[in-house]
Amino acid sequence: MSFDTHGSLNGLVKMTTQTEFRFSIGGTDGKARTGEVVTRHGAIRTPAFMPVGTAATVKAMLPEHVRETGADVLLGNTYHLMLRPGAERVAALGGLHEFMRWPHVILTDSGGFQVMSLAKLRKLTDNGVTFQSHIDGSRHELTPERSMEIQGLLGSDIHMVLDECTPYPCTEEEAAQSMRLSLKWAERSKQAFSGAPGQAVFGIVQGSVFPDLRHESAKELIGIDFPGYAVGGLAVGEGQAAMLKVLEETVPALPGDKPRYLMGVGTPHDLVESVKRGIDMFDCVMPTRSGRHGQAFSRFGKVNLKNARHVEDPRPLDEESTSATASTYSRAYLHHLIRSNEILGMMLITRINLDYYQELMGGMRAAIAAAEFDSFVARTIAGWEQGDLPER
Amino acid sequence: MSFDTHGSLNGLVKMTTQTEFRFSIGGTDGKARTGEVVTRHGAIRTPAFMPVGTAATVKAMLPEHVRETGADVLLGNTYHLMLRPGAERVAALGGLHEFMRWPHVILTDSGGFQVMSLAKLRKLTDNGVTFQSHIDGSRHELTPERSMEIQGLLGSDIHMVLDECTPYPCTEEEAAQSMRLSLKWAERSKQAFSGAPGQAVFGIVQGSVFPDLRHESAKELIGIDFPGYAVGGLAVGEGQAAMLKVLEETVPALPGDKPRYLMGVGTPHDLVESVKRGIDMFDCVMPTRSGRHGQAFSRFGKVNLKNARHVEDPRPLDEESTSATASTYSRAYLHHLIRSNEILGMMLITRINLDYYQELMGGMRAAIAAAEFDSFVARTIAGWEQGDLPER
Repeated sequence: MSFDTHGSLNGLVKMTTQTEFRFSIGGTDGKARTGEVVTRHGAIRTPAFMPVGTAATVKAMLPEHVRETGADVLLGNTYHLMLRPGAERVAALGGLHEFMRWPHVILTDSGGFQVMSLAKLRKLTDNGVTFQSHIDGSRHELTPERSMEIQGLLGSDIHMVLDECTPYPCTEEEAAQSMRLSLKWAERSKQAFSGAPGQAVFGIVQGSVFPDLRHESAKELIGIDFPGYAVGGLAVGEGQAAMLKVLEETVPALPGDKPRYLMGVGTPHDLVESVKRGIDMFDCVMPTRSGRHGQAFSRFGKVNLKNARHVEDPRPLDEESTSATASTYSRAYLHHLIRSNEILGMMLITRINLDYYQELMGGMRAAIAAAEFDSFVARTIAGWEQGDLPER
Repeated sequence: MSFDTHGSLNGLVKMTTQTEFRFSIGGTDGKARTGEVVTRHGAIRTPAFMPVGTAATVKAMLPEHVRETGADVLLGNTYHLMLRPGAERVAALGGLHEFMRWPHVILTDSGGFQVMSLAKLRKLTDNGVTFQSHIDGSRHELTPERSMEIQGLLGSDIHMVLDECTPYPCTEEEAAQSMRLSLKWAERSKQAFSGAPGQAVFGIVQGSVFPDLRHESAKELIGIDFPGYAVGGLAVGEGQAAMLKVLEETVPALPGDKPRYLMGVGTPHDLVESVKRGIDMFDCVMPTRSGRHGQAFSRFGKVNLKNARHVEDPRPLDEESTSATASTYSRAYLHHLIRSNEILGMMLITRINLDYYQELMGGMRAAIAAAEFDSFVARTIAGWEQGDLPER
């Protein structure tokens, strides 16, 4: 294996130029697996949680602190980045890794989801989607080819195929039509993808809550042949039980030797239940967005630090936490900062949450390797159900 | 000298219980001096710049990073802290050092300035001032005695006497009346101050732009006998030339063996000109507030990173800076973050500015010690006047 330097700033971003993209499973426990996805910017230990770095920043976090939480990979949003600063501009500045000073793995979404949720005056055709920027009203087009081009300019290690985001709820007919359009786009995405060694593009299984459609989608995508498969169109309002049912029906239709990524999920409880059903990768804004609003995740479950019960509480959130932030700053101080709309409050609670999410993923990886996953999950859920410390 | 542990959280806050408050001058160059103010929470190297930690946080900065910039001391705002979370509450939580996890020196202002600039329905009498909180409309009173009590509850190492903030501009008659009321309050403040060893209360010279009044104020305060003297009522719209003229007239009236603190000042240029005139300590929101708005301070002067000229500039703000933040993140990235209203942009540029302010203070201290202050100032000002790097 030889190393080469990519980019110019202090040799920050190093790539293993001879690395082929690969996935290896190190251990299983039931359907849960632990392993490693290897890319040109390093390895992702799975099961993995990817913090969301929407606009080339994980909000309120220094990049070196994101790394310190234990994150191996973060997600960049193609929609936001194509609008500002623009994909060609990021490429001219050395690519997204260099731009945001994150020398580790980056996965980018296709942009399709945010076009449907954020952009204005959308027009969808078989060819792709045209829309107006929510920032400045400028007109843009996103096709499978352009999405691949943008993700290539950003230089992400894992690209996602452009898909149509099926609304929820919808009829089986609508879901079928949407899923089949996504299949065509998946094929075009794969053809347009010109990855370097250690880069990959993942397919996305659609089909809403309809098992036959999910199976059809999985089968056709496997025919196209991707190095990884995502499950999309979930966590859009169907509820946890419906989501887990879709996973139970869909995951067995996916190849066992390829990574499986559940998009946009979720709560800590969603994560353990999904790992149990064979998922390897996740992304979600929950730990960062909740953190900015004073919601902290911990082994006691979700704790609302804005609540008046914390106003005079000198105890840290969790004195036994491995997170230095969670185990040192007092609840009273975090409460004060959030009530005062202080940026430091958002910074500290975001850090606490990303620390907790990564601690949870590390705990799951170790438990799977030790074939103790079920008892780990039972113990973890019992802690959440017991809830927060009693008031002092 | 013996050490004792104050507070309970991990022994964060250590005090030297046997330390008496003292000031020593290590070197002079013209009127400029370098030295050390010693308090129970450690020493302040002078000339010193104090970042402002209004609501128990230097905005957008982790406390350990404030320390890393080279700050020996920060300023807490009595007005904000008495309203939220409240002085008694901070005391119950172990004091301000413990509360905000800043184990180094803290100076608190008296609260008077913010009462006049922020509070509603103010009523001023000889006894003190009553007002309504700008946060929740609650009614409060601030007298010299209550200000000392609050600063004692917060546990700051250096308290400031309550003074009346003379409006600018004003007549000599108004300035005289206001200054004489402040003298009465200074005497009451001193009497009410019950400091522990290593704690101190500073007097504040008032008198607007009138030399006779400044002299009268200084003489009377010296009669009361303080361990340090501030110059107040400046940087309120009089302009730099008028401010420096007041310093030239006032500083010689202050004892040479006591620290001199210019309140609420200022720009980097204000700092060097004031040190040249014998000032030892400063505080100002400028580096932090400007940082949150995309204005960066550097050896090139003030650089507006929001400006479109930076949009594709891969260069760091200053590749020769001792600030890792200023010498690594690209201007294009900082521009992108600020234009996108990202918290990380505020964090990074605040850090750049505090790094630069402390680098400037350190440069002044070294230059005074080496008796090269004038050439240091000339070189520094020449750099600012040369301005930013040419566009690429």
